[in-house]
Order: sequence, then structure tokens, then C-alpha cells
Amino acid sequence: MSKMLVFGHQNPDTDAITSAIAYAHYLNQNGIEAEAVALGQPSEETAYALNQFNTAAPRVIATAANETDTVALVDHNEAQQSVSDIKDVEVYAVVDHHRIANFETANPLFYRAEPVGCTNTILYKMYNEKNIEIPADIAGLMLSAIISDTLLFKSPTCTKEDELAAAALAEIAGISMQEYGLAMLKAGTNLDDKSIAELLTLDAKSFPMGDKNVRIAQVNTVDVQDVLKRKAELVSAMEAENRTQVYDVFLLVVTNIIDSDSALLAVGSHLDVVASAFGVTLEENVALLPGVVSRKKQVVPPLTEAFSK
Amino acid sequence: MSKMLVFGHQNPDTDAITSAIAYAHYLNQNGIEAEAVALGQPSEETAYALNQFNTAAPRVIATAANETDTVALVDHNEAQQSVSDIKDVEVYAVVDHHRIANFETANPLFYRAEPVGCTNTILYKMYNEKNIEIPADIAGLMLSAIISDTLLFKSPTCTKEDELAAAALAEIAGISMQEYGLAMLKAGTNLDDKSIAELLTLDAKSFPMGDKNVRIAQVNTVDVQDVLKRKAELVSAMEAENRTQVYDVFLLVVTNIIDSDSALLAVGSHLDVVASAFGVTLEENVALLPGVVSRKKQVVPPLTEAFSK
Repeated sequence: MSKMLVFGHQNPDTDAITSAIAYAHYLNQNGIEAEAVALGQPSEETAYALNQFNTAAPRVIATAANETDTVALVDHNEAQQSVSDIKDVEVYAVVDHHRIANFETANPLFYRAEPVGCTNTILYKMYNEKNIEIPADIAGLMLSAIISDTLLFKSPTCTKEDELAAAALAEIAGISMQEYGLAMLKAGTNLDDKSIAELLTLDAKSFPMGDKNVRIAQVNTVDVQDVLKRKAELVSAMEAENRTQVYDVFLLVVTNIIDSDSALLAVGSHLDVVASAFGVTLEENVALLPGVVSRKKQVVPPLTEAFSK
Repeated sequence: MSKMLVFGHQNPDTDAITSAIAYAHYLNQNGIEAEAVALGQPSEETAYALNQFNTAAPRVIATAANETDTVALVDHNEAQQSVSDIKDVEVYAVVDHHRIANFETANPLFYRAEPVGCTNTILYKMYNEKNIEIPADIAGLMLSAIISDTLLFKSPTCTKEDELAAAALAEIAGISMQEYGLAMLKAGTNLDDKSIAELLTLDAKSFPMGDKNVRIAQVNTVDVQDVLKRKAELVSAMEAENRTQVYDVFLLVVTNIIDSDSALLAVGSHLDVVASAFGVTLEENVALLPGVVSRKKQVVPPLTEAFSK
């Protein structure tokens, strides 16, 4: 077996990057040669965490089969979110906390999914189950991902297990969870110097829903209007993406990490289905989604149901 | 949440039945109300194990949604092997040791798969990880499944973890593994009083392969010729099944548990693909597959590859 590559989803967020680092280390400790790589550059939030915990950003790969025959997926499983040539390599393992869809293997594999807020919470349990020590810097990266995915424990995706794992990891890393967490999240909300294209790709995923192809991007901010002031440009870029990438709907979820709610910007056909999914009225493509911060738990499920009718 | 139903695949084997019992007990110990049920009657081998360990056969269900909204799958994940109305219920958890295919959820879930020989080996680890005590009778049932799935550790699917789990479970159950195991396997090879239809359904599963629908039945025996003397009737029944159930190919794998090899009886179209998958020549629909005892590891993968070309 060639060296296994471990990676999270495209447009990697902090969990995608750090769970690859944490799982590759876990595999190494189990005698398996594995390297953490990434399907994109770290975000500013992730870069803040990597810098804080003295870790280089994983190298970015575009394809896997040119250098290995075996991969491990973290923080995702759906083929369209994975490496472009995922069909040409064997999936040895998946560690994930998402729904399972558009995923198929020819052979038995390791698959560990739990409905918790963060992949690194599962990895924390796996380290514990095998009594493998977590180095302080990796603990800090794992903690960063839990804070990121749960918005400092405020997201409805956050479970008791995430909180317990975070507290234990903060102790190993030797840092103050709240203070560090807020600083890290704020580092990720500096959107002013982002181009329109960047806003739409920073954290964007595609979801097949019924017979429709739905693209959902999400950005975190401390000021929703600061993003929506660029609405005209955003809409025009989203329309262009819909045409070229054949998305039926493009949604941008602009999440206020302080107030814990989101503004939804929706572009494409079937906007009536989108509005009905959330029980809102879109006014000039925009609706407020009070209390909504989680794409996975509060955006994808109602949309999937509405588009499957 | 209504009471969760836990079940293995259709045409249940010993692992399908006993892993449902073991996982339902595990869930109960974790405060979740769950009942082990089955998608069919126990085989003679399974009945032998249930009787030995003082456990009633789980009641058989045909549909799930009429009595619950939540289910847990053990020893399978593919929809066509599951309860007929799987699409109408929420899958809370899967514990399995097979490839993942034709499986999709709307929400995150527990999924625990490992490439080991038996679902109960994974369940044994899960009990240990949470320090939950395994009652002696359940340990005996779990051991029975490991013996069944690995043909007393002779199948290539058998791993070191299966052997370790079996040894520990034998100690809890207080029985001799080899002596009990051979008696249980032999109890399952009494095929003389089985009808042709029973031989073809005792342990049969459907697999989509490329654009073909392949049915693979397997029976264990201590005398292959004892089964093949009924070839004419078998072929005619398999042809009828292909017509009515729209299978492209129907395979019967007749496995000698003493010699650890199998005879293959193949009926349907594309028999050239079947023969090429195993590198054999079919003579009057029959070929010997030396050393082949595992459908999962030695039959499905080469066929999947051959049919995907």
C-alpha cells in the first residue's frame, strides 16, 4: 500500500483541515503511514488556529490517484464534496459527522460517524478508546475545530459530547477556551478584503436534493449588512455560477456569530420551494432566518424535504 | 421517539439475528428503548445457537413504519437487503462490516463499520469501550455469529480482532469454542429436508453490479455433491426467479465448511462475465472455486469489478 492520504472536504473549513491532521497522526500512531493533505487553502480562521498551534498548513492536492491508491476521508463522505478522482482510489476509512449520501464502496471499510457537532469530537473519542496520547498542538487544533463548528457551543449541532471533548482538549492544549475561541472566530469574519468569488467559495458545498442540484455557501460575520451591501454583485455572480455549474439554486447563508441568526440570499429557479422550506418570504432574494446558524442541521434538512416532495 | 427497532438483513444468518439482539441490549443499557426483531425466521444453525443460549427468536417483521419511526440496522446497510419500507423510517444507527452502497440518509447518524469478519466483533468492542457488561447468554450468541461468519476462523474475512473477540466471548459464555462451534456449524448444514426454494433463499442477497442485478445465494454443507445432485431442479427454479424477480444472474455458492472451498452454480445471462470474474470455465453451469468460502470477500468484489467494466 502506498502512503495513505487523509483529507477533508473541498473548500475546507477548520474541521476539515484539522481533522485530517488529527486523524493522520492517529493512523501514524497505529502504525499506518498516512499524510494529512487538503483540497484547498486554509481560511483565515483556520490559518489563525494553525499559527496558534505551530502547525504548517497541509499541502493542497487536486487529485489523489496520481500519488496513492488509498485514502481516508474526514468531515465528509459525499463524492461531489471530495477529491475529484475519488472513484479511482480505495477509501480505507471515513470519520465524519454528516448524513451519508452519494457514497459507495466496493469493499468493507472503517466508517465512524456520529451525530455530534464536530469530526474532531469523534476523533477525540477514538484517541481515548485506544489510549493514544494527543500532543498539545494537535489538541489545540482539534479544540479549534469544535469551537468553529459549534460557534463556541451555540449551534444546535453542539452536543454534550462536543462540550466534554472541548474542555478536555483545552486542558491538554493549555488555553482558555472562551477567550481563544472568540479570537479565532473573529479572525474568520474579516470579509471586507474578500472578493465576491471568495465569499461564494470560502465554505460552499453542493447537495443533490430530489432531482435538483443545490449549492449552499456560508460565511460567518459580526455584521450581516456588511456582507449584504454587496448584494447586487453577489446575485450576479451566483446567477453566473448557476449557469456555468448547472446549479438549480444557489444559496448564501450569512451567519451572525454574535446574534446566532442568519440572512439567506437565494438565487436561481424554484425559489418558492426555498421559501416554503423555511416558512419565510423572500424579499428581493433575501430572508432573515432567526436562530439559524447550522447549515447541516437547520438548512439542508428542510431544503432536502421541500425538494423531495 | 417510539421504540426503536433493531434488525439485520433479509434472509437472516446467525450474525444478522444475534447482532440485533446484542445491539438492542447495548442500546437498552445506554437508556434507549430498543427491540431486536428480524426480517425472517432463524436458520437451523441460528436456532441451534438461540436454543443453546436460552434466547427466544426475535419476532419477524415485514414492515417497520407501521410501528416505529426509528430503526437501527445491523450487519447490512444496502436498502434492497433491508426492511421493505426503509425509506419511510429514520435510520438512527448502523453497525456493519460490509461495503457501503445504496444507502442514504437525510440526517447525521451513528455509523460504525469495520472491515472485520463479523458484526458482533465490532459490537464486542463497543461494549468494551463503554464498559458495559455482556451477559453470558448474549456473549454466547455473539460468539456463535463470529464462528458462523468466519467458518470457525477459516474464512479470509477473519481478522485477529475476530479471534480475540471470540476468545473473550467464549470465556464469558463459559464454553469450548472449537467443540461448540463445529456442532453449531454442522446443525446448519442439514440441507436434505430443505426444499429447492429454501436452498435458494436461506442466505440470499441481491447486489446491483454495474447496470445488472445479481442474486447470490449461499449454503454451507459438509458434502457439496449432496446439494448438486438436485442441480436440474435448482437451475429451473433459478431461471424462474430470474424471470419473476428480474435478476440478470442468479448464483448459488455451495460451500464445504470442512474443505473450505465452494462449488458455484450460475444461471442467467452474462455467464461469460461470471466465469471471467473468477477465471474459471463453467461446465453445465457449474465451476469449482477452490479456497472460496466468503461471499463478501471472494465472490462479490470480483463480480462487481467484472460487471462494472
